[in-house]
Amino acid sequence: MNASDKDPLVLFMPSGKRGRFPKGTPIIDAARELGVYVESVCGGRGICGRCQCDIQTGHFAKHGITSTADHVSEFSPKEIRYAEKRDLKPGRRLSCSTNIEGDLVVDIPQDLQINAQVVRKADDGRIIERNPATQLCYVEVEEPDMHKPLGDYDRMREALERDWGWENLEVDFALLPTIQKVLRAGEWKVTCAIQHDEEGSRPRIIAIFPGLKNEAYGVACDIGSTTIALHLVSLLSGSTIASSGTSNPQIRFGEDLMSRVSYVMMNPDGREGMTRAVREALNNLIGNVCAESHVDRHDILDLVFVGNPIMHHLFLGIDPTELGGAPFALAASGAIHCKASELDLEVNSGARVYMLPCIAGHVGADAAAVTLCEGPHRQDSQMLVVDVGTNAEIVLGNASRTVAASSPTGPAFEGAEISCGQRAAPGAIERVRIDPVTLEPRVRVIGIEQWSDEPGFAEAAETVGVTGVCGSAIIEVVAEMFLSGIISEDGVIDGSLAERSDRIISEGRTHAYVLWRGKQELVIKQTDVRAIQLAKAALYAGIKLLMDKQGITHVDSISFAGAFGTFIDPKYAMVLGLIPDCDLDHVKAVGNAAGYGAKMALLNRGYRREIEQTVRRIEKIETALEPKFQEHFVYAMAMPNKVDAFPKLSERVTLPQRKLMADGMPEDGTPRRRGGRRR
Amino acid sequence: MNASDKDPLVLFMPSGKRGRFPKGTPIIDAARELGVYVESVCGGRGICGRCQCDIQTGHFAKHGITSTADHVSEFSPKEIRYAEKRDLKPGRRLSCSTNIEGDLVVDIPQDLQINAQVVRKADDGRIIERNPATQLCYVEVEEPDMHKPLGDYDRMREALERDWGWENLEVDFALLPTIQKVLRAGEWKVTCAIQHDEEGSRPRIIAIFPGLKNEAYGVACDIGSTTIALHLVSLLSGSTIASSGTSNPQIRFGEDLMSRVSYVMMNPDGREGMTRAVREALNNLIGNVCAESHVDRHDILDLVFVGNPIMHHLFLGIDPTELGGAPFALAASGAIHCKASELDLEVNSGARVYMLPCIAGHVGADAAAVTLCEGPHRQDSQMLVVDVGTNAEIVLGNASRTVAASSPTGPAFEGAEISCGQRAAPGAIERVRIDPVTLEPRVRVIGIEQWSDEPGFAEAAETVGVTGVCGSAIIEVVAEMFLSGIISEDGVIDGSLAERSDRIISEGRTHAYVLWRGKQELVIKQTDVRAIQLAKAALYAGIKLLMDKQGITHVDSISFAGAFGTFIDPKYAMVLGLIPDCDLDHVKAVGNAAGYGAKMALLNRGYRREIEQTVRRIEKIETALEPKFQEHFVYAMAMPNKVDAFPKLSERVTLPQRKLMADGMPEDGTPRRRGGRRR
Repeated sequence: MNASDKDPLVLFMPSGKRGRFPKGTPIIDAARELGVYVESVCGGRGICGRCQCDIQTGHFAKHGITSTADHVSEFSPKEIRYAEKRDLKPGRRLSCSTNIEGDLVVDIPQDLQINAQVVRKADDGRIIERNPATQLCYVEVEEPDMHKPLGDYDRMREALERDWGWENLEVDFALLPTIQKVLRAGEWKVTCAIQHDEEGSRPRIIAIFPGLKNEAYGVACDIGSTTIALHLVSLLSGSTIASSGTSNPQIRFGEDLMSRVSYVMMNPDGREGMTRAVREALNNLIGNVCAESHVDRHDILDLVFVGNPIMHHLFLGIDPTELGGAPFALAASGAIHCKASELDLEVNSGARVYMLPCIAGHVGADAAAVTLCEGPHRQDSQMLVVDVGTNAEIVLGNASRTVAASSPTGPAFEGAEISCGQRAAPGAIERVRIDPVTLEPRVRVIGIEQWSDEPGFAEAAETVGVTGVCGSAIIEVVAEMFLSGIISEDGVIDGSLAERSDRIISEGRTHAYVLWRGKQELVIKQTDVRAIQLAKAALYAGIKLLMDKQGITHVDSISFAGAFGTFIDPKYAMVLGLIPDCDLDHVKAVGNAAGYGAKMALLNRGYRREIEQTVRRIEKIETALEPKFQEHFVYAMAMPNKVDAFPKLSERVTLPQRKLMADGMPEDGTPRRRGGRRR
Repeated sequence: MNASDKDPLVLFMPSGKRGRFPKGTPIIDAARELGVYVESVCGGRGICGRCQCDIQTGHFAKHGITSTADHVSEFSPKEIRYAEKRDLKPGRRLSCSTNIEGDLVVDIPQDLQINAQVVRKADDGRIIERNPATQLCYVEVEEPDMHKPLGDYDRMREALERDWGWENLEVDFALLPTIQKVLRAGEWKVTCAIQHDEEGSRPRIIAIFPGLKNEAYGVACDIGSTTIALHLVSLLSGSTIASSGTSNPQIRFGEDLMSRVSYVMMNPDGREGMTRAVREALNNLIGNVCAESHVDRHDILDLVFVGNPIMHHLFLGIDPTELGGAPFALAASGAIHCKASELDLEVNSGARVYMLPCIAGHVGADAAAVTLCEGPHRQDSQMLVVDVGTNAEIVLGNASRTVAASSPTGPAFEGAEISCGQRAAPGAIERVRIDPVTLEPRVRVIGIEQWSDEPGFAEAAETVGVTGVCGSAIIEVVAEMFLSGIISEDGVIDGSLAERSDRIISEGRTHAYVLWRGKQELVIKQTDVRAIQLAKAALYAGIKLLMDKQGITHVDSISFAGAFGTFIDPKYAMVLGLIPDCDLDHVKAVGNAAGYGAKMALLNRGYRREIEQTVRRIEKIETALEPKFQEHFVYAMAMPNKVDAFPKLSERVTLPQRKLMADGMPEDGTPRRRGGRRR
């Protein structure tokens, strides 16, 4: 546009991108030249309303810009018509029909709702800058002409090139038989969904709708081995319309990952059965979110999935047997592109699926998504990202170098190897405090509001029951046992305390702690403490190994992803030595960061390239091949960790301080989310 | 390679491409630098033998090259090993393992047979320079390594990039679940089939075979409304392995094109039924050619189809209704790319289908294939290409301009509107001579060796019967009737001749000619003559219209494509005025040029681009929209044509000359193929 210094200065918010443009430039052209994504379905015809912008007025001293309403062209006939037919709020303009006439501050609303019927769901508030792989493009196609006998498809393609600049377009073959009917139904006006993900690929027409189609949806989904979480997202506004979750039906084939791999190895149709089960569950979830928000599932055009390598393979229909043993060879580690129909997903027949790359045989697309969400590779300080499941996936690094590993924590953190462990359900103990003097516990139970020493608890417990200890609370029990001196630094339950409390009981050659006495007696055995010790030692050893690789003894921040991260208190994790020393203000639970990473990849294809490049750069550390891992593991069996392995925290948490720390623990019964974001 | 004038000069035959290369350059590298396609599956490992070349020895004065056997490096260990295991004829070298050491003339055999079990079929002798869209690439893949946890697919892709230079590869999603097994079955040595058709597209892995796969096949097929002709071609040698044909089973839904369109319009499942029928027939044909040549149908990786627009649409599963009326809108006119599985074709599941572009609603991919084969766009002189079916598709032009049209000849030329017409089958009259003095006919009948006036005919006719006149013979009958004066220039059967011969009979207000008296009487009625008159007038008017568009009154050559072109004698066509005046030496029947064009597109993707560009450039003339067409049509009703419309031939074929011309007609009973090629 050859702008000069005398041309008006335009600042786009919230991106902050700015530039000078000659008077008369449409705002949408200025935005695009600066790389500010402004949606438009109708291609500047003023009928879709997707390109709305807010003209800010006032003097913006910081930017040196005085922006006024008369620094833009007058309302155009298109805008007047749109405002009459639809609803254009005061201050709003259509950026396709509004020209720059002076300095401007233009706000591009990030969450524009055009279709009022859409049910809004509270989103996380974080803005994902959009640049979707799938775009709706409205065109008016020339009618057939015997003098110019191009086919109907070919004329549509011409219109897409002329009006939208799409060159070298391809079309899904399955659409060819439908094009003539759709063109005639729309009276030669149609909206094409164009998918253009990777730069080196040809853009592709994946769906065609008669007339103006002003809404399209995407799905972001994290396929966990236990839980599947799925979000329905508007591709045009970027907002999450509805979310739903379900337990992974593959559980009936095997509780944990390795038992599912075994099932495949033992049963000829095992892989197929598990693939079908997870795809059915996904179709049901898609049905749920669509029903909830009155969305037609055939309007879903793009889907992003993440999951650990075994979930990844089973979902894609790939035999995961190779992942069951060394060298843990993935069938494919790079990002996967395919059609939703190839995965039997019941959405638009042209819809595309993108799966984030896997980092290694044990560090999957879910870890990649967590990495994309948290972004250690986007910052200078050393960030530790931990996602605890059956294995703990660990990523550590910054913009210059990132390393990753999987630590074999086993299922103890999920409560699976704990004698009184149970799933998080009513009746499960979720919070524990032990008085270091009397050794008496206070607990909070899911489904009961009061702590166990508060009035009303007993009555409620009659109804709800107290039946077990949920996974994340195990950490708290063991930490409290340590803080109250019931277990020593090497994890032995101190039998001599039986003198002080009848809660310390003898069990053969070891001792145990009676956490609860009621209809059911809940006992923390020495083997339970050992299970947690082993798990935490594995996690810590993995982290320490990565810290060695980075040559650091201190991390700047820690992000705890996943349900485990959401429910445990980071302070207890640090007391036990699950995670290294770090300023607690920089330790945060980030919830379903994997799902959020999937959503980022759904809304912005730039994030797909970013995580692909990042994963290629990430150095993968195989703990089993590193002699140092064993060494760290042995040290980390201690609570919190052996002094030489982890001096700083160990110093701080000396026995005299335990009472103090225990006093500082939150009493409100809710897990702390320091700096954490709800998703 | 920075060659200098002192470097050896290498000439490649048969392409004639030449260049200088430093000593030590492998012959294959020199060939590739010059754009000479040399096959290689193993990538220079000396195991596939596909890159064999013949070192010519002697002084080639014309080229100024003295080529001797010691102008190349000595036999390499790879070649010795190959010659021991397989068969390397004297003089043959592997161009991957042979270096240039002096001036050379190198012959690249165009039809190299590696797998001896393959049944050879006589090919047409014409060489199609190869540059196939689908290529076999053997690679040795690194085994998985925990230190470098790339997926199996990703390592294979790396190997393809490293050894073959394939960048930005894609893979068919359906292959992902198979890759691990194939890699292990081949002990990390596999052959990938890479499809790379259009330059702007990403190359794509469409099939993977364990170990070295040294043969792959393609199919070239012309789907005619009456007959389907299919050829099995080796993608590696370019030779046709087997051919087969069948009648189009859609005939049961409607004999001609328009009745098939009507069938679709009248029956809700009509389109589907016809699509299924043609695809089944194709699968059967593929089964036939594979059985005949002991080829596994799953080794077919690439298929090229041509057909008229309605066959094109029905095959692709597209409703042809729009082609049934103005403006005759094609669903898609450009070339079609899809997977064979999308068309239910039972070949390799990754095989690709290419369909040539259609020129217009009445001028299909078959006409495009004929154009590609004959190449009016490749030469300076004006070439007329005529493909007569139910409609006649006409292309006229040269390198600077090409025009095309379809003339509504109707089915008369196929014998469909002729009272005694029948299909070409035993018992059908195929040749006719009428004595201009006695008006007595002599005929030749399919299934009988002798002419009807020769000894032995009567006995044979007892068995075979004489049951009708086949399509192409109708032209000859009418031409002979004209040449013998039975019909006048305006096509009226001269009733006054009944005085001279009892073969002229009265039929109400018109007259007829009794062509055959036997168990069945075969009579050429006035309406039959009229039908041929109308058809020939339509054809000629179409040609004349295109000549007008080109501003010419004379064409330099005529190519008659299709079965009709093969069986009629061009001289009779000229006598009747079907085609304009042209030196008979430049009139040729080119047989199934459509099938040959398909084979060209199969073996060389360059031809695909050539015909796509040519079709875009071809100017389409819609006869129905051209007032001149009616005018030409009326003139052309005359035999051969009205003097002013076509003076030259008309002058020559004056009545006194008829006897002379009749005498000059071939008597051997075989159709003449002047300069024609058998395919």
